[in-house]
Amino acid sequence: MDKKIPYKIYLSEDELPDQWYNVRADMKTKPAPLLNPATHQPVTLDEMSRIFCTELARQELDNDTPYIDIPGEILDFYKMYRPAPLVRAYFLEKALDTPAKIYYKFEGNNTSGSHKLNSAIAQAYYAKKQGLKGVTTETGAGQWGTALSMACAYFDLDCKVYMVKVSYEQKPFRREVMRTYGADVTPSPSETTKVGREILAKFPGTSGSLGCAISEAVETAVNSEGYRYVLGSVLSQVLLHQSVIGLETMTACDKYGIKPDIIIGCAGGGSNLGGLISPFMGRKLRGEADYRFIAVEPASCPSLTRGRYAYDFCDTGMVCPLSKMYTLGSGFIPSPNHAGGLRYHGMSSVLSELYDEGLIEAKSVEQTAVFEAATQFARIEGTLPAPESSHAIRAAIDEALRCKETGEEKTILFGLTGTGYFDMVAYQKFNDGLMSDYIPTDDELDKSFEQLPKV
Amino acid sequence: MDKKIPYKIYLSEDELPDQWYNVRADMKTKPAPLLNPATHQPVTLDEMSRIFCTELARQELDNDTPYIDIPGEILDFYKMYRPAPLVRAYFLEKALDTPAKIYYKFEGNNTSGSHKLNSAIAQAYYAKKQGLKGVTTETGAGQWGTALSMACAYFDLDCKVYMVKVSYEQKPFRREVMRTYGADVTPSPSETTKVGREILAKFPGTSGSLGCAISEAVETAVNSEGYRYVLGSVLSQVLLHQSVIGLETMTACDKYGIKPDIIIGCAGGGSNLGGLISPFMGRKLRGEADYRFIAVEPASCPSLTRGRYAYDFCDTGMVCPLSKMYTLGSGFIPSPNHAGGLRYHGMSSVLSELYDEGLIEAKSVEQTAVFEAATQFARIEGTLPAPESSHAIRAAIDEALRCKETGEEKTILFGLTGTGYFDMVAYQKFNDGLMSDYIPTDDELDKSFEQLPKV
Repeated sequence: MDKKIPYKIYLSEDELPDQWYNVRADMKTKPAPLLNPATHQPVTLDEMSRIFCTELARQELDNDTPYIDIPGEILDFYKMYRPAPLVRAYFLEKALDTPAKIYYKFEGNNTSGSHKLNSAIAQAYYAKKQGLKGVTTETGAGQWGTALSMACAYFDLDCKVYMVKVSYEQKPFRREVMRTYGADVTPSPSETTKVGREILAKFPGTSGSLGCAISEAVETAVNSEGYRYVLGSVLSQVLLHQSVIGLETMTACDKYGIKPDIIIGCAGGGSNLGGLISPFMGRKLRGEADYRFIAVEPASCPSLTRGRYAYDFCDTGMVCPLSKMYTLGSGFIPSPNHAGGLRYHGMSSVLSELYDEGLIEAKSVEQTAVFEAATQFARIEGTLPAPESSHAIRAAIDEALRCKETGEEKTILFGLTGTGYFDMVAYQKFNDGLMSDYIPTDDELDKSFEQLPKV
Repeated sequence: MDKKIPYKIYLSEDELPDQWYNVRADMKTKPAPLLNPATHQPVTLDEMSRIFCTELARQELDNDTPYIDIPGEILDFYKMYRPAPLVRAYFLEKALDTPAKIYYKFEGNNTSGSHKLNSAIAQAYYAKKQGLKGVTTETGAGQWGTALSMACAYFDLDCKVYMVKVSYEQKPFRREVMRTYGADVTPSPSETTKVGREILAKFPGTSGSLGCAISEAVETAVNSEGYRYVLGSVLSQVLLHQSVIGLETMTACDKYGIKPDIIIGCAGGGSNLGGLISPFMGRKLRGEADYRFIAVEPASCPSLTRGRYAYDFCDTGMVCPLSKMYTLGSGFIPSPNHAGGLRYHGMSSVLSELYDEGLIEAKSVEQTAVFEAATQFARIEGTLPAPESSHAIRAAIDEALRCKETGEEKTILFGLTGTGYFDMVAYQKFNDGLMSDYIPTDDELDKSFEQLPKV
């Protein structure tokens, strides 16, 4: 071990960031504006505020303020589970026999099991401050729903979660954690909403999708007095809150003289990747430093690597604003054999713009290779990773092995977003040799692209 | 918040203990010796070494050495998940409106989900150092088996786990985590051992017990070339390894001027309680400080509060050494409605002796009250606690509420041994209002005591 770098770097509480960083402020080309789905005009704060909490809508539309104060109540809550450690993967380096130095920022040390809590508590706080009764949301793999349940329990807010039906059935314990925190969990599509009933009528027996669950949650929020809708990824406000990951990481790196060459994160809607890279990207945009950023997505849901950069619906019911993003089409549903999250059809408009400008690379990986990396990592580094996080592990191991070939001593940093305790059905499938890969065909994607709105 | 005490105290790596503390060295009356079950004579190192790794047998018999160096390989592994934070429960204090100060040492930030890894890695290390091929063990709630699987994966040792059948069935995901770490998991009683076959013949349809799983694991170890048996609790060597919990806690307390009045831990076999209190008990035994120690056990398995202090079998098959301990009789099996661990019939001989001398108090709590405390804690402090740990939470909350009545500003410290991610079946039962309590009758216990050996 390098005596100068501890196995785990924990910042002290007074080193924690007290402002979020808004990477949009440093982007020359701002992400394209959200559009009203009916008028195709940029959405106004007033329109946004019917769906979202007003302060969150304001953050969503703010492309200019670089730093936003984190309210004291949120800072207090962050202290319950933050700082998250920046871990030097000494054991993994040794096992791979690589000259690369590998670090990971571990966000799994909280009951939601992921980084999602960083934005959940912020969104719950603003909902409470606005005097709301509760919030509605959707959840896929379940980390976001769990995080929001925890945040709502803390602020004594009502929490209604629409959980993608396949996850609801495959992850009954996720549902139970949410219930323990007092949330109301409904499998989606459901009979409780108009959009849910329509989808059930059109596709009886559907296993659901995030896009559909979003539509149900939005419908419920809009029709319930004192409720707003909240979302755990994709949105620019979420990336803002998640910047706490990157800010802590950067402080730790600067403190110990760590200079990452490559920064890797898994990418579904972009919340973790965006949060981790934001402050580093800021430095790159301001010309202060350079980094390679790699977004890793599932080959079965390849929005960056095979999607179109276009305006699309954020939800199946087409009630949300249109967003310009890399997308597979709002009707795209990953193959049922796809385990875990990262199953959203689109990508954060911020990350989409940065990717389009060539500031971020993207690669897709197949899930058997992901679970191989996950198992290897678990046995060597101890922590059982979430399938989503393991996409980043796969890419980090591949980069480290490339360094072994070339002899380069690169510094690789990746986001370990969460733990896999609620993903044992998928691990069992892998352990039993029953996991397979599915890559959508070009024809499938072309058909899905036909649904893109004409904007 | 008290600005001087952070929400979470993390020691730096150079503050971590590099020696374990052996509380037996400071005990005036040593725990009674283990006896050979056939001869009723104190077991020798040679006899012990047929079952246990030689170095571990040596530690088991060592009542005199106060400090034992932690080997470097174990220290390295500890750094993967230690230091464990000492948390100030600011939010719980506020919610209870108590003048008491509440702290907890949180041992759940690792994939085993509990403190068990502290001893698992030590036992795996000594097995590897002895050149063994593998180890066998039993597991009840599953934390120990998971911890041992992780430790064996790290040292590339074979790991055979006998898992109490009721847990094997109720916790398939625990089994799957162990498999992910490469362990071989068998539900107990099984057909793979003589003792298992006998128990199955005598009690067809039995849901198993820890005592039975121990017998199977010991039989397999003794009959397999290059294998030894390892145990996750009860033994004095385990308390020695677990002293790392108490040593870290004491260093953190001393550093911040925290003086606990009451130290609380849940107690099944005693591994967590013994580890947490050992160094504090050392101070008490040496007359340097005074503390109240409270062992909290389930009312359904009340070995300290209602057991006999007598020599008893450690396992159902009666192959292990006899231990003098507080016991309910080796045939005692908690009611099937008992959720979670803490289901062993006996108690650490070290803790038994300390309890007998009045140096430790004990109380028993009913499981519905435990799950009430668990849910309250989860919603207020964020972390979803293991049912076992929640026994300590219950007692800590009760003490804090007592302080509220009396106005005393006591400092209460408890061990939060782990997380409840694999206990959602039990939480669901509680959430659905289907959980009930069972307290064994005096007649039941008297009948069980009849099986105590005549020593």
